[in-house]
Amino acid sequence: MSVKTKCGKCNGYTTQCAAIFAVIVLTVLSTNQIVSHHSAVRRHTRETGQKLQVNWSDCAPCPPESRPQSSLVQSAWTELSRINCSVDGDYMIGCRQDTFDVFLPASFINKYFEVYGELSPPDDHHQSQWYNFRSSYGTVHPLQQADYTPTGGFLNFHKYNVEARRAILCVTAAEGVPLATQWDKAGYFYAISIAQFGLSHHAKAQLEPTPVTRNFGAGDADLARWRMTAPGSSIKRVLDRVGGVDIPVLAFTSPASFRHGAPTLSLNTQERALSFQIKLTGPGGITVKIKTRRNTFGYVSYALVDKILEVKGDHVTYGMKIGNTRKWLWLTRDLFIDWLKGLGNPKISTNWFLEIVEVTLHGRGYLANMTVAASAHTQNLIQAADWLVNHQDRAGGWPTSVPIKTRAIELPPNWYSAMAQGQAMSVLVRAYNLTQEAKYLEAAVGALALFTRESTDGGVRTRFLGQLDWYEEYPTSPATFVLNGFIFSLLGLYDVQKTAGGDGQRLAQQLWTSGLFSLKKLLGLFDTGEGTLYDLRHVISHEPPNRARWDYHMTHIALLQQVALVDVDPVFSRTARRWLGYCRGERTPHN
Amino acid sequence: MSVKTKCGKCNGYTTQCAAIFAVIVLTVLSTNQIVSHHSAVRRHTRETGQKLQVNWSDCAPCPPESRPQSSLVQSAWTELSRINCSVDGDYMIGCRQDTFDVFLPASFINKYFEVYGELSPPDDHHQSQWYNFRSSYGTVHPLQQADYTPTGGFLNFHKYNVEARRAILCVTAAEGVPLATQWDKAGYFYAISIAQFGLSHHAKAQLEPTPVTRNFGAGDADLARWRMTAPGSSIKRVLDRVGGVDIPVLAFTSPASFRHGAPTLSLNTQERALSFQIKLTGPGGITVKIKTRRNTFGYVSYALVDKILEVKGDHVTYGMKIGNTRKWLWLTRDLFIDWLKGLGNPKISTNWFLEIVEVTLHGRGYLANMTVAASAHTQNLIQAADWLVNHQDRAGGWPTSVPIKTRAIELPPNWYSAMAQGQAMSVLVRAYNLTQEAKYLEAAVGALALFTRESTDGGVRTRFLGQLDWYEEYPTSPATFVLNGFIFSLLGLYDVQKTAGGDGQRLAQQLWTSGLFSLKKLLGLFDTGEGTLYDLRHVISHEPPNRARWDYHMTHIALLQQVALVDVDPVFSRTARRWLGYCRGERTPHN
Repeated sequence: MSVKTKCGKCNGYTTQCAAIFAVIVLTVLSTNQIVSHHSAVRRHTRETGQKLQVNWSDCAPCPPESRPQSSLVQSAWTELSRINCSVDGDYMIGCRQDTFDVFLPASFINKYFEVYGELSPPDDHHQSQWYNFRSSYGTVHPLQQADYTPTGGFLNFHKYNVEARRAILCVTAAEGVPLATQWDKAGYFYAISIAQFGLSHHAKAQLEPTPVTRNFGAGDADLARWRMTAPGSSIKRVLDRVGGVDIPVLAFTSPASFRHGAPTLSLNTQERALSFQIKLTGPGGITVKIKTRRNTFGYVSYALVDKILEVKGDHVTYGMKIGNTRKWLWLTRDLFIDWLKGLGNPKISTNWFLEIVEVTLHGRGYLANMTVAASAHTQNLIQAADWLVNHQDRAGGWPTSVPIKTRAIELPPNWYSAMAQGQAMSVLVRAYNLTQEAKYLEAAVGALALFTRESTDGGVRTRFLGQLDWYEEYPTSPATFVLNGFIFSLLGLYDVQKTAGGDGQRLAQQLWTSGLFSLKKLLGLFDTGEGTLYDLRHVISHEPPNRARWDYHMTHIALLQQVALVDVDPVFSRTARRWLGYCRGERTPHN
Repeated sequence: MSVKTKCGKCNGYTTQCAAIFAVIVLTVLSTNQIVSHHSAVRRHTRETGQKLQVNWSDCAPCPPESRPQSSLVQSAWTELSRINCSVDGDYMIGCRQDTFDVFLPASFINKYFEVYGELSPPDDHHQSQWYNFRSSYGTVHPLQQADYTPTGGFLNFHKYNVEARRAILCVTAAEGVPLATQWDKAGYFYAISIAQFGLSHHAKAQLEPTPVTRNFGAGDADLARWRMTAPGSSIKRVLDRVGGVDIPVLAFTSPASFRHGAPTLSLNTQERALSFQIKLTGPGGITVKIKTRRNTFGYVSYALVDKILEVKGDHVTYGMKIGNTRKWLWLTRDLFIDWLKGLGNPKISTNWFLEIVEVTLHGRGYLANMTVAASAHTQNLIQAADWLVNHQDRAGGWPTSVPIKTRAIELPPNWYSAMAQGQAMSVLVRAYNLTQEAKYLEAAVGALALFTRESTDGGVRTRFLGQLDWYEEYPTSPATFVLNGFIFSLLGLYDVQKTAGGDGQRLAQQLWTSGLFSLKKLLGLFDTGEGTLYDLRHVISHEPPNRARWDYHMTHIALLQQVALVDVDPVFSRTARRWLGYCRGERTPHN
């Protein structure tokens, strides 16, 4: 009989569980009854007069996501009496009782303690179900890399899918970056979302093999593959200046209406990244016909209109903006995401994208460099970096146009965020390291200036008790001291100081050094001994402590693990380990 | 059928319990089954499609210690199946399951969440038991008074019984103050215990009616009541100088051996406070014969020996010290406590003190002002104050002779404590206000000096981030920032600034003001959103946070409630209310 033992270093609940389970096995074998393991320990102690001793070196480490073994499952029924339980002397709930123990309902436990539980899925092998009880819903994704460099991955961002989030309306066709809706349903460009979009794709590019790209160019064979399905439509090869160079491109003419599309090129591929350059002389665009998992068809158009996203039945249209008439645009689209946003972000859908069937051209214009690939992560990074370069303001920042007004945070329109500045720097440095194009590094260095300006003066810096520098995710007054945004901003500073030279390097290094000093001094303020706090509003403004939900607790851990890779102080890894324990119900000792 | 409703302001668990219980009642009545109230709510919502609405103005406040009504108790048995529960994916425990819910064993819940539960005591009326589930074991004692003055009560110290604690060896006969054993089993005078002894008795004196005191003087009738039971023993009236005044006292001669005691005076009283002045010219003393609750007899002697406490069978001896030969000593003894310490502090005992039977004199000496009363609280305060006056050192402090070496706190012998200084001040100011004797106020003012000296320089003051004054209960380096000790020291400063004049008043006011400023700035650092922290070792030294156990959490609340009475800032009462909620499982919101 195989028994899963509990490993002391995996959970602080008790250090006697290996022995406890041994006792349980004996109990099961001898009496065919399961007793709670505490009863078992008590009984063992009573009967033998000995305290249980466990040699923990025998104990294998517990994999965090291990599937529990079901050797203890019993299908027998038993009689329990009902008993009322008084909760804190305030009210009663219905419980159960047997000779050994009282049993409390999970529905109460989950709510009262803010924990989680669910029955395991039914088992194909007709084995019994079990109940999964968890302190946290968070999953610990290991860091992507064992070191941290400004050219490499970023925390566990390879697990992020920024543009798929509900708070993202879509990736716009004109800009190629996600449009946020968190604080304004109309949508706005939020530098943090854009930077995270770039960082997550860069991180994925590090991990995944370089995708094989199929080109659909302007050669004779390429031309011959286009079908002319509408009267008066044509396609031919011409030379045109694209990105400063004359290259052969396809000139096309067809009805501008998207109902009578032609020319058409069959692609029939399950790859989802479609990239092309397009220049239109008037209304028109390109339509991608897709097949869904349940074998129906859908249409995703990129049209020279000003609407950002329009959904009509099975037709989703992304606007490339009328202002871009007669300009070459470079689109790199993830058809899975573009179709998903049209479907309204269903979590699971048979209607999901399965295959690109064909593309059809509308109106008059030019098409160049059309490719299909499994992914286009590097190009997605460049889209983000280009948006950042093109939208950086004179102060070196990316202001958020939308004001915030919540219970604790109030910001007028066009506020700067140290987190936006920092994450933008991390994107720009990566784009620079990839392309060696100076504009990216210049923009990253330009983003430093706001770190030297007080948040009360339009910058992002505040000081704890007037002396410890802190870079504010939300530059409120009084300050909020959001932990995760601060550390993200530090990583951006680190990236710049490791990449730039001259004054930029010196300033970044100085900001990084003083920020890291503050982080060490103030890290403990966010530690409750059983979880972490999101910010310091309880210290500064005497608000109730704003406990970090498990998502943010996990982000805190990943950030500390990341900082531990670039600073020798053991406090970061030690704290990260302790915080990891909180996810499994561990608590620090009390006095 | 009477149903206990849950009041929203008593517990934040859910705001729908009144309606939930209404549903439960309906369920009980209609199906004779109890379902957990969450199931009930779910079912209600499912069946009616409505959300439950409760008018909370109908809801009576919940008394914190109310005995839950047992109208929900059901004695029927039911069948539940066994199911295994996986805990955080680490190990399995045995649970139960019915159609509505999974049930987890209380023995596991209590350990995992550090909560408490026990079955109610068996009921005389043959009603069913219930299970008492509680987040905290702490009891909230309301403050003694609705205001705070340096002449009045102190927090909830009227509930304290300092000398009965296990960490107190006894109240010594020579000094009349408690002897601590917490860090040294041999015993040592600890100014905090002594001050708390004085403050608790002063607080009790405020609440209880002045006890009726019976005097056993040196008049003819008094003399006649002494029985001469041993050959050669005698007693007579003489004049002697006691406390600077010539008064009639009793001169006695009898065998010095405590085995042959005489003269003897019958008292036969259940009052427990015996007070007398005694002067011995050689070996001897006084023995009090007591009767216990199980009608056996015991003997408590106060003898001119150097041992502090000696127990031989049913004979407990307290030493008045040979050095006190030919000196008038004033003893005020609580026979319940003196006998209890001889019994070894049993929590419940039939052998407890019931009655003083008689007193017997030994050796040669003088006796004056013997009284019996129900209590001697005011005299106990004076004992503490006198000890403090007599043992204050040149620096104005009461150093602790015993070093400390724990995981986080290390102090060499003779360290000062801001808490000791502060609580001593509170005692001395009360003794001064009672007696108008200048020595008490002078000692209180003298105790201020150590607050102006850094803890690294032999004082008790440290500064948070070098700028916020903090008075250290333990003047460690690096600093520990113990919250309760700091606020106790503030109350002492408040007492002096309200009582002293001149420079003393000015210094006390300045120390109080800057301390209160720090408290407001740093209070949030101790708040975890579900409990409080004992100190800031996690901030200063990156230790795991030292969570306050419920006793200290309760003390934190009482201290804030007390400060709220002398400062207008609503932060103190608001925080105290929030912290009170944590005792019933309330948590602050998470982000």
